[in-house]
Amino acid sequence: MNFASKTSALCLGTVILATASFAASHSDKAAAAAVEARHAQMGLIAYHTGILGGMAKGEADYDADLARAAATNLHAAASMAPATMWLEGTEQGAIDGSRAKPEVWSDAAGFADRLNALQMASAAMIDAAATDLDSLKTAMGDVGKACGACHDDYRGPKN
Amino acid sequence: MNFASKTSALCLGTVILATASFAASHSDKAAAAAVEARHAQMGLIAYHTGILGGMAKGEADYDADLARAAATNLHAAASMAPATMWLEGTEQGAIDGSRAKPEVWSDAAGFADRLNALQMASAAMIDAAATDLDSLKTAMGDVGKACGACHDDYRGPKN
Repeated sequence: MNFASKTSALCLGTVILATASFAASHSDKAAAAAVEARHAQMGLIAYHTGILGGMAKGEADYDADLARAAATNLHAAASMAPATMWLEGTEQGAIDGSRAKPEVWSDAAGFADRLNALQMASAAMIDAAATDLDSLKTAMGDVGKACGACHDDYRGPKN
Repeated sequence: MNFASKTSALCLGTVILATASFAASHSDKAAAAAVEARHAQMGLIAYHTGILGGMAKGEADYDADLARAAATNLHAAASMAPATMWLEGTEQGAIDGSRAKPEVWSDAAGFADRLNALQMASAAMIDAAATDLDSLKTAMGDVGKACGACHDDYRGPKN
């Protein structure tokens, strides 16, 4: 685990969900912007996972520098503080485009655990991706599991 | 400057642009995905700057925890390694939706300097945002200047 990864691990304790005061004061416009920001976050996670997955599957040549950059960005996106984007009242059905299940808020501790799992898996990927293709493949399994586990319980069906 | 900020500052030296091998091998689909990823990155920067700006302007109540979370996420988005998203051949005119001027690549050192300025300003914002509203306002000036300076020279007109 490198220096940046250790720092990120230390920062995990600061992850908190939206404060009641912010949730209570946000407008419809703010709620729509929050959902859009979450989609941007998820898009960046998917994009960088796709670069790593392409190498893992042999669809793209293994490139240690690029793999490390992708893992770094994946970790950065996964480690964003949820308080700014996961606003109460923005679950699927309450606002267009959202696929967040109500359990994101009603089971906030469980959601935080799942998010934490991706943060840890992506931190491990930073070193693994830069080591060799086999290490990348192994780390990819944990990243994929973390994505899937969260989606299973906290993401609703397609809109 | 806190521990996370110091780490980020140490990591700035690792910022690199797309390697020739990746640029040469990417498909049209990959190029479009890269532009979309950049838009997600810029969207997250704008979203979190908007939260901080709203407090600075008095449009929203100052909330130290939320401000710190917004600054943390702004810094995370600004600090993503450009190698995965800023692919050669994805300038404005070459691919739909792109507003990146060719100078992003032809003057890569200048672009890196501008990106570095936002990384430094957003790192400083993390502590400032959590201190008090006056500190946030002061730091906001530097963030705004960094955004504007890069857009002036490296972003083209609206499509």
